[in-house]
Amino acid sequence: MADTAETLAAPDFSGWTCPAPLRDQPRVVMGHGGGGALSAELVRYVFAPAFGGEVLSGLADSATVSLGGARLAFSTDSYVVRPLFFPGGSIGDLAVNGTVNDLAMSGATPAYLSCGFILEEGVEMSLVARVAEALGAAARTASVEVVTGDTKVVEAGHGDGLYVNTAGIGLIPDGVDIRPQRAAPGDVVIVSGEIGAHGVAVMSVREGLEFGVEIESDTAALGGLVETVLRVTTDVHVLRDPTRGGLAAALNEIAAASGVGVVLQERAVPVPPAVANACAVLGLDPMYVANEGRLVAFVPRAVAEEVLAAMRAHPLGTGAAVIGECVPDHAGMVVARTGLGGTRVVDLPLGEQLPRIC
Amino acid sequence: MADTAETLAAPDFSGWTCPAPLRDQPRVVMGHGGGGALSAELVRYVFAPAFGGEVLSGLADSATVSLGGARLAFSTDSYVVRPLFFPGGSIGDLAVNGTVNDLAMSGATPAYLSCGFILEEGVEMSLVARVAEALGAAARTASVEVVTGDTKVVEAGHGDGLYVNTAGIGLIPDGVDIRPQRAAPGDVVIVSGEIGAHGVAVMSVREGLEFGVEIESDTAALGGLVETVLRVTTDVHVLRDPTRGGLAAALNEIAAASGVGVVLQERAVPVPPAVANACAVLGLDPMYVANEGRLVAFVPRAVAEEVLAAMRAHPLGTGAAVIGECVPDHAGMVVARTGLGGTRVVDLPLGEQLPRIC
Repeated sequence: MADTAETLAAPDFSGWTCPAPLRDQPRVVMGHGGGGALSAELVRYVFAPAFGGEVLSGLADSATVSLGGARLAFSTDSYVVRPLFFPGGSIGDLAVNGTVNDLAMSGATPAYLSCGFILEEGVEMSLVARVAEALGAAARTASVEVVTGDTKVVEAGHGDGLYVNTAGIGLIPDGVDIRPQRAAPGDVVIVSGEIGAHGVAVMSVREGLEFGVEIESDTAALGGLVETVLRVTTDVHVLRDPTRGGLAAALNEIAAASGVGVVLQERAVPVPPAVANACAVLGLDPMYVANEGRLVAFVPRAVAEEVLAAMRAHPLGTGAAVIGECVPDHAGMVVARTGLGGTRVVDLPLGEQLPRIC
Repeated sequence: MADTAETLAAPDFSGWTCPAPLRDQPRVVMGHGGGGALSAELVRYVFAPAFGGEVLSGLADSATVSLGGARLAFSTDSYVVRPLFFPGGSIGDLAVNGTVNDLAMSGATPAYLSCGFILEEGVEMSLVARVAEALGAAARTASVEVVTGDTKVVEAGHGDGLYVNTAGIGLIPDGVDIRPQRAAPGDVVIVSGEIGAHGVAVMSVREGLEFGVEIESDTAALGGLVETVLRVTTDVHVLRDPTRGGLAAALNEIAAASGVGVVLQERAVPVPPAVANACAVLGLDPMYVANEGRLVAFVPRAVAEEVLAAMRAHPLGTGAAVIGECVPDHAGMVVARTGLGGTRVVDLPLGEQLPRIC
């Protein structure tokens, strides 16, 4: 922080009172970017009061807005992953897939992306080009178009090679109303495939670890998978891509937003053996590890089998599995039935176990 | 750049051939973020080939896209200005006004913004809150809503306190077609007010300079001013906010996109005496200094007087002035008739004279 915002920012902040829940956090910590409880506090106590508005507090991955008679999904994410390239993908892939997936989780058909680079002075132009190429290729795969962009450069030592932000817009089909608040008792919880690969893939290269087999990130654009599901039924209640904070954070957010309880069958959650082994070595719980090409769906029991079959028939859903259900008990709480017949609470993580995972 | 992208990025870039015009730039320099010739090269030779698409190459401040029957403007900018607060505004104001103005320059009515923060670990929460408050207040003034957001945190030493990206969408009214390609010989060039204040305001605090009077940034949202003009006539050919690279860059881009020549009357360009003095001290040309609350309009001669009067009747256009015209000669080039009767070429700047001005 030498010679940065603090020294340069002239105004007197003495009139600012830190909201009570943030009182122990007078400074930003890594966890504020982790997608867990600390991130939620930052939004609730700092951003929401400043920005106002009801849409922001909707807690969905994207906002739903109306413009010129069209119902649109609108979302943004900045990407600061380290390293920039990892087994199975790169920051360019994430920048497309992450934002496209946020749109798809409202049932929207992702259409257009913006792209803003913050480059560090001195970074190799070849690196910028490789990231741009990966981003462009991912956009073509996801059937979205990068239509507008911006580049800023900061002095050496004030960045980290390359950060990228994308925002995206997509069209929400008529009759589709998918949002966390719609989870209801009786809903079946389906995950589209094995979890934990993205986080472990990034972590393994960052720490220089090897686990016998190379674990590749699951990064993928899920627009096509969602479209497949919506062809079976538009009565999908919730979709969520379990990124930062993993499946645990996604399920907790849905339980909190809808006021239902979620019961998981721990043994039904698909974790590849290589990921399970790596997590054991790294001291991680796969339930909290980020995914970038998976979704969790809450659907009425009546359509669950059909949705599951449709997912399994799609290349990005071959590993889909029913992992739990919604109950009227323990509202807002997620519990897991363990393999031994016990029950444990699956908490919202405070931050992200693995900083800068996306 | 220690311990960053370069060391962490595993892939072999040896197959990448630096495009010829970039051959002298194997690494990113500050000017690549300056909005001048270097920025244009980066887009042309690195981003455009990677992303493909025709819309990106349209060179406008925002993209025009169709979705669900609505004609939308879509734009993004990242903000890295130093210091975060300066006379007349802050990064929060810029993050709203910059993106809103990019939308307005296509004639769109700005409606919704996304907001992505990249925070540096250790930054004071009060600083984040003050920036958020400024951003929220600016959004309310501009009649736009911040509807979706994201926060990432990077380790101390890998950021600069706070960066922010906004993307925005707006609705383009029927019958409006405003873009750089539409400039035509005979068009009258109008600027909405005095130029140079933003760049000088930022520079003065950054360098700790005083010029007798405090110069305040002109940062403002121009949606209302554009609406006022469009009530007079929808036959506006080009609108542009002369930000990075100043009036000179804006006019050069329009001349290049449309293939017209632009002739300025140097003495007609309104430069406040305080800005002129400061520029003399700093060795800057006001024509190249960034503005954040001004626009330049190209309109047919038949409606020029009416447009000028409408601008002057608006609080953000009181200083509006005719500064030149479009001619069929010297296609793609901007020249200025000097006070002494001579003519000089007004070049596209290579980069921005003042790095991190927005």
